[in-house]
Amino acid sequence: MKRLARLCLVWLAALSLQATVHAAAPQIEAVEPPHWWVGFAESRLQLLVYGPDIAKAKVSVAGAGWRLERVERSDSANHLFLHLVIARSATPGPRELIISHDGVLHRHPFLLKAREPGSAQRRGFDGSDVILNLMPDRFANGNPANDTVPGMGDPVNRSAPGGRHGGDLQGVMDRLDYLSGMGFTALWMTPILENRQAAYSYHGYAATDLYRVDPRLGTLDDYRRLGAEARRRGMGLIQDAVPNHIGDGHRWLRDPPTRDWLHPAPPRAPLTNHGRTSIRDPYAVRSDRDRFTQGWFAPSMPDLNASQPLVAQYLEQATLWWIEEVGLMGLRVDTWSYSDAAFLSRWAARLRREYPHLGIVGEEWSLNPVVVAAWQGGNPLFGKPRGLASQVPADTTRPTVPSLMDFPLHDTLRRALVEPESWGTGWVRLYEFMVNDRLYADAGKLVLFDGNHDVPRLAPALNHDPALQKMALAFVLTTRRIPQLYYGVEVMLDSPRTHDAFDLFRADFPGGWPDDPVDAVTGKGLNAAQADLQQWLRRVMVWRKSQPSLHRGQLTHFLPEDGTYVFVRHLPGASSVMVAFNKADQPRRLNMGRFRSALPLPNQAIDITTGEALDLRSELPLPARGVRIIGFSKGSR
Amino acid sequence: MKRLARLCLVWLAALSLQATVHAAAPQIEAVEPPHWWVGFAESRLQLLVYGPDIAKAKVSVAGAGWRLERVERSDSANHLFLHLVIARSATPGPRELIISHDGVLHRHPFLLKAREPGSAQRRGFDGSDVILNLMPDRFANGNPANDTVPGMGDPVNRSAPGGRHGGDLQGVMDRLDYLSGMGFTALWMTPILENRQAAYSYHGYAATDLYRVDPRLGTLDDYRRLGAEARRRGMGLIQDAVPNHIGDGHRWLRDPPTRDWLHPAPPRAPLTNHGRTSIRDPYAVRSDRDRFTQGWFAPSMPDLNASQPLVAQYLEQATLWWIEEVGLMGLRVDTWSYSDAAFLSRWAARLRREYPHLGIVGEEWSLNPVVVAAWQGGNPLFGKPRGLASQVPADTTRPTVPSLMDFPLHDTLRRALVEPESWGTGWVRLYEFMVNDRLYADAGKLVLFDGNHDVPRLAPALNHDPALQKMALAFVLTTRRIPQLYYGVEVMLDSPRTHDAFDLFRADFPGGWPDDPVDAVTGKGLNAAQADLQQWLRRVMVWRKSQPSLHRGQLTHFLPEDGTYVFVRHLPGASSVMVAFNKADQPRRLNMGRFRSALPLPNQAIDITTGEALDLRSELPLPARGVRIIGFSKGSR
Repeated sequence: MKRLARLCLVWLAALSLQATVHAAAPQIEAVEPPHWWVGFAESRLQLLVYGPDIAKAKVSVAGAGWRLERVERSDSANHLFLHLVIARSATPGPRELIISHDGVLHRHPFLLKAREPGSAQRRGFDGSDVILNLMPDRFANGNPANDTVPGMGDPVNRSAPGGRHGGDLQGVMDRLDYLSGMGFTALWMTPILENRQAAYSYHGYAATDLYRVDPRLGTLDDYRRLGAEARRRGMGLIQDAVPNHIGDGHRWLRDPPTRDWLHPAPPRAPLTNHGRTSIRDPYAVRSDRDRFTQGWFAPSMPDLNASQPLVAQYLEQATLWWIEEVGLMGLRVDTWSYSDAAFLSRWAARLRREYPHLGIVGEEWSLNPVVVAAWQGGNPLFGKPRGLASQVPADTTRPTVPSLMDFPLHDTLRRALVEPESWGTGWVRLYEFMVNDRLYADAGKLVLFDGNHDVPRLAPALNHDPALQKMALAFVLTTRRIPQLYYGVEVMLDSPRTHDAFDLFRADFPGGWPDDPVDAVTGKGLNAAQADLQQWLRRVMVWRKSQPSLHRGQLTHFLPEDGTYVFVRHLPGASSVMVAFNKADQPRRLNMGRFRSALPLPNQAIDITTGEALDLRSELPLPARGVRIIGFSKGSR
Repeated sequence: MKRLARLCLVWLAALSLQATVHAAAPQIEAVEPPHWWVGFAESRLQLLVYGPDIAKAKVSVAGAGWRLERVERSDSANHLFLHLVIARSATPGPRELIISHDGVLHRHPFLLKAREPGSAQRRGFDGSDVILNLMPDRFANGNPANDTVPGMGDPVNRSAPGGRHGGDLQGVMDRLDYLSGMGFTALWMTPILENRQAAYSYHGYAATDLYRVDPRLGTLDDYRRLGAEARRRGMGLIQDAVPNHIGDGHRWLRDPPTRDWLHPAPPRAPLTNHGRTSIRDPYAVRSDRDRFTQGWFAPSMPDLNASQPLVAQYLEQATLWWIEEVGLMGLRVDTWSYSDAAFLSRWAARLRREYPHLGIVGEEWSLNPVVVAAWQGGNPLFGKPRGLASQVPADTTRPTVPSLMDFPLHDTLRRALVEPESWGTGWVRLYEFMVNDRLYADAGKLVLFDGNHDVPRLAPALNHDPALQKMALAFVLTTRRIPQLYYGVEVMLDSPRTHDAFDLFRADFPGGWPDDPVDAVTGKGLNAAQADLQQWLRRVMVWRKSQPSLHRGQLTHFLPEDGTYVFVRHLPGASSVMVAFNKADQPRRLNMGRFRSALPLPNQAIDITTGEALDLRSELPLPARGVRIIGFSKGSR
């Protein structure tokens, strides 16, 4: 009721504003997108013009190479939608919007920029990458001056787990040498857009301006510099995109561009039911599916109505804008399936039309590979359900996104490592789970992770056992997936194990703040086990960069025996890699005969984690509770 | 080594036998199949003739309408394979095999019988059935005279969990009225073939003669009579077929028809690795797949080499023989995937060629629906793996069997019922699991079970909670599956909960032995909860017979809320059925508005478990910890 009362007040205020500005000059508070480019495949552009009483204005455009096709007025007095067409022959440069109202005229500058050469053909992320997921507020405080920004609310409070801690883009920038030295090639930061929320704003998933970097994290210029500096070191940026929802501090809550811009607010409509299976379930009803995609994610996170074409185009353009402006290599897409499925199809198709190789990885947080696989583009398995008069509309079942976060395998890996070896458990669980790769259009394009900002950290999940942590990381980095690590895993950063302690999965990166007793970058204060894991990981990840068989090779694996699990990655013409795990408390010697079909006569073998040369003519010696990553010289295959 | 020594002795004995019979008359110890029929679609017939030194004999056949196309000799002196062709015009009646050796002639009678009218078009089992799984040795002792049979070994010992208890076919026959009165329409008995094993023979999965009923269970005539009496009561027989293995008491262990009739014995070759996923796993190696299908199931269970065409045809014919001889409605196939996959394809295709509607349900004991679904005939999902140079041969991936045991849903149902309701657990786990039905060619043809002889019983699995047992049984009997119950579930028969106590999941059916203090058939000694569940189940199952919407109707279900779960089965022109569960300790009243899309204005509603008429115009009242099964009159839809 409190929210409802507030909405009424806002509405009354808007009415009175409307009454008073009638005779004033047209004021433009925002044009979105604020600029654009010539040279996109799609020539149409939709501008959202925001200003008091702007709907009453007349609009035209000045300058060559573009034209205003149509002005669309909605039920909002303060918004105008301009549908423009940019000619293929248009040259980059300034243009103008001409807005007139009651004889008063206003010229609003609008820039059409030139795209960077090769922009459309930029490479995305793939199996040759190692992605780092970090939370900018929790990584490093490079600029204490922006810790608290007046007017933004939620001042810095490092002692509160759910408060802002002061980390920022400068902190990341200062550590790029460390990150590239570790072997990372891509950075996925949790969202960096403005989150002008009264509280709990640090996580970034409640955007209040889809065209602005949050000033507590830095400026647009900082973000662009971070992208450029990262690229100089062989690393790309992956932006965290959130097409499903915004924060309730967004001005659209007070003044939406259309009445149906957002889905109805709770308690008028219920929150999402998280019923993600209902999208594919042949037995689900439409009302459950609608509540899943239309219900708000949280009371502070209003749900965008992306089935509204104006919203859909707004979101498409906002995403393209950041890709082009900052030079992103890809997107991680939050709460993927919570958006309208038909919208997601079109959105992803538009992005791939403009950037055919762009990396896009959706977050479909299901442990069921059937649910995840159904979203991957090119998957022939998931058309309309057969033999059933399904209520599922056709376009919602068209899979579109090239990559998904592999929650099912992530969860299975963690379970397999800590449980005893038995029927269907331990390595056998992991081995047997790989049969599910049959469900995917291309399992090699999934992103497998040791952890992320939403799950307990790897160290506690694996009982703080360094040997198990090496095994988990070795698997993530060498199986047929795109690997992603969570910041701090290299120094065994800790967290609670309970799944509802989100804020505590996001501890500050050691050394990110001047007074930190431990510094993961310099090594100050690391204990021996931390230093060892960090060094081991650096060696593996740097070596991994030069291993095409890990980037795109085939996988062959062998049924686990006696606590051991072995697989081989191989690619014609490239060195093969063998990975061999031993969870047993005793060393094992495995007969190499079993592995010959995947790896003939490998006599030039090096354990790349130790540098040790191995004689594998008859047996593979495995240390107790350890993992070997073995590289072979090309000649040996 | 002990086994090896024994095999050597047997071999030496066979050699000396061979030496002494040279000049004797040809003796035939067995012709398999012992008789055959005219009128099969396939005109070829393979007879295996067994007798000392029989390979040296000359063979011809006498009688019209069949001809001996080829005599095939193997590496065994004591076996002959006769390849015959039966003319389409052949008339039923006696024929002869004429065997001559060293001038001595022997005429062996062989009967070609007439098939029962309509035999080929018999109906199999489907969603209109309720299958009962029982173990004949543990159900009822109808004939104490056959408890121990001289020369068979393993004498009766009712006090030993792994011993024979004396149950038999007569015991089942005596209780057919009870079973049909409960509403069962199909009986799946664990195997009734001879198991002349020294010990642990009661379970029946170690056959020692594929053409003989075990004399401790009865005679072939008993079995035929059981089939006929069951049919008279509207019930069909489902035979438990075991194409993968036999018992080591089979004469083939001493004297195999060909050297490659069985896969190599342990320890020369390892036991099966149970690596069932390797059949479909795009990354598995051939050696792991071969060990899965070729390794013995147990040291006492030799593995048949069904990739040997003579073995394959032997098994095909043995199966057809029982179907035709006893009038079976279908087969439950043990250890399905452990057999050669190409053989399974041909075997099932042959059976369906002769009996297009025969029910065949394979046991693929995996909890992963991907693994189970891959075997169902007509499934387009599982061709060759895409994008991979797979080592999986094409014919092993062709799915063939119409039905599979639904271990994944069985396991999920049990888990969902006992765990608390939370994110992804309880009813939500069950609801979300149903999305996997997208994987199946036809999920409605899977057999879902409350339990079977290999898993802990339902009562202990559900904490001996009568309310949860009703919910489980209601689900099994009303969701989109073919239901199967395990004997004794109606009186909450108990067992340990640990998964390795097989013999104890198979307690004697109460009242099956004269001195039993409890008799489930008469009701003697049942406590109130047992009598209530039995009565409830009888009412549901008898009512179920007349509900086409449960037999073949569509399913619509609703996302669980507050500990409740609701679904509807509906079929155009038939009465709809609504099933509503409430695990909460409080009664619930659900808004009927949610369910209207599946069930418009149901004003003539009866809770068929209580007979109570319900007013469902606005709300659905649910008792605490209970399940309603609601039938609607036709007019109300």
